[in-house]
Amino acid sequence: MTANDDDTVLARVRESFDRQSFMATIGAEITAAAAGLVEVRLPYREDLCQQNGYLHGGIVGAVADVAGGYAAYSVFPDGSDVLTVEYKINMVAPAQGDWLRAVGQVIRAGRTLTICDFKVYGERADGDSRLCATGQQTLMRMDRRAG
Amino acid sequence: MTANDDDTVLARVRESFDRQSFMATIGAEITAAAAGLVEVRLPYREDLCQQNGYLHGGIVGAVADVAGGYAAYSVFPDGSDVLTVEYKINMVAPAQGDWLRAVGQVIRAGRTLTICDFKVYGERADGDSRLCATGQQTLMRMDRRAG
Amino acid sequence: MTANDDDTVLARVRESFDRQSFMATIGAEITAAAAGLVEVRLPYREDLCQQNGYLHGGIVGAVADVAGGYAAYSVFPDGSDVLTVEYKINMVAPAQGDWLRAVGQVIRAGRTLTICDFKVYGERADGDSRLCATGQQTLMRMDRRAG
Amino acid sequence: MTANDDDTVLARVRESFDRQSFMATIGAEITAAAAGLVEVRLPYREDLCQQNGYLHGGIVGAVADVAGGYAAYSVFPDGSDVLTVEYKINMVAPAQGDWLRAVGQVIRAGRTLTICDFKVYGERADGDSRLCATGQQTLMRMDRRAG
Repeated sequence: MTANDDDTVLARVRESFDRQSFMATIGAEITAAAAGLVEVRLPYREDLCQQNGYLHGGIVGAVADVAGGYAAYSVFPDGSDVLTVEYKINMVAPAQGDWLRAVGQVIRAGRTLTICDFKVYGERADGDSRLCATGQQTLMRMDRRAG
Repeated sequence: MTANDDDTVLARVRESFDRQSFMATIGAEITAAAAGLVEVRLPYREDLCQQNGYLHGGIVGAVADVAGGYAAYSVFPDGSDVLTVEYKINMVAPAQGDWLRAVGQVIRAGRTLTICDFKVYGERADGDSRLCATGQQTLMRMDRRAG
Repeated sequence: MTANDDDTVLARVRESFDRQSFMATIGAEITAAAAGLVEVRLPYREDLCQQNGYLHGGIVGAVADVAGGYAAYSVFPDGSDVLTVEYKINMVAPAQGDWLRAVGQVIRAGRTLTICDFKVYGERADGDSRLCATGQQTLMRMDRRAG
Repeated sequence: MTANDDDTVLARVRESFDRQSFMATIGAEITAAAAGLVEVRLPYREDLCQQNGYLHGGIVGAVADVAGGYAAYSVFPDGSDVLTVEYKINMVAPAQGDWLRAVGQVIRAGRTLTICDFKVYGERADGDSRLCATGQQTLMRMDRRAG
């Protein structure tokens, strides 16, 4: 894959991502994309926390689901949409740091169903990075209805 | 269990829930609680959606996780805190309606680990209710450090 | 649903189950079936255990998967086959007793994907029954290729 | 880690594995072990199949669970035992070939809970290898009761 191909993937993924109002509400953005791999970044904000001042598990789950979902979407043909069938996520450490980085990656792409792995890291501006969640996800490819 | 007991459970669950800034940000609230059962409600808002105008999967996962987590917490002794170890969620229908109702329920409470079931429904003011997600969750009881 | 309908479901489920050599190897059998509900029973055997003399987790997972899979299959049209996409299982107590009873139940049946819940109980001849595993499963309907 | 250390891990893992009667019943064996990594191998047998002649999903789940469980056990201190809390497994292709190879790997080891990833491959004597299942697992460390 050339850099140009990755640019095309990134543009296509962002075009869909930018229509998700919830991602704008929480301040998440797509920071990298290639065929089968998408990275989402969310800066820490005090209004996105649980009772101990860490980022909320719902935020962790949301960026994980989105990273995995767009990793699947990145390998789908044009004109198709992606649906999360299910995911499973282990929370392995508190979600802290200056931002979260979620990485979704295709394990196996099928005609109907695609399986992704995702990991979420809490990272600091000084370079510290710590795994805070890991999971696995099943996505479905939907053919978009013609207009 | 008498109504009074339920009132105590509800007050205890709300005291913790109200310290979760993310729940205030998205407008979720605890609408019912009893020992081993918690209900969370989230009104529809256009800034919490995915690309097709339905409530975002991250929102569905968040209220599911919170409903299950507080269901576990509701049976823990005073002075303990709850941690989500992991959960698995199936998205079975688009999250639409006037609000989401998430119901978490303890399947088995253990000394260290508690297992909960959760369901999320999309509901309308006219009484229509539709299952949109179902899952299972493992929670850990943590003893709070003395101040 | 009448008893006759249930007999038809049971016969159809058993016809497929009986072609699973592994179920014969471990001595499992279908003990009940109705549309959307299947029960599998497996008598305790010393050659199916883990290191502490309880029935092996692999056995628990196998009967759970089969009970859920056939619960889905029981609502599929004739000429279709069932495939386990994925499942998640919590082991909540050691699998002991005179037999295991696994109950699979359809939560939501879709055109392509069906979601089931399963529970596995360790039971004794004296009537004691204890939940030892609980989980959730995604199944896919496959149209059988014409001969 | 030196080869000697790996030999010690392998011996310790096998000592427990060999007390699992079910693993002997189905003909599984541990073929490699290092700290945090265990490989299980199971030759194809006609009496371990589902209705289409592929190895049964229950077999796939069993070797996956065991590979992950012993990967966790391999990093536990002496005198502790391992318990599967839960796992989630995606079946991504039929389990065929001359044998199955299951690989369990620790993602994060904690004091109480350890998270593992597992993969199961269907392999042929001619070198062909194909992923047939992938999953994630939560294990608990138990201190063995003194005799």
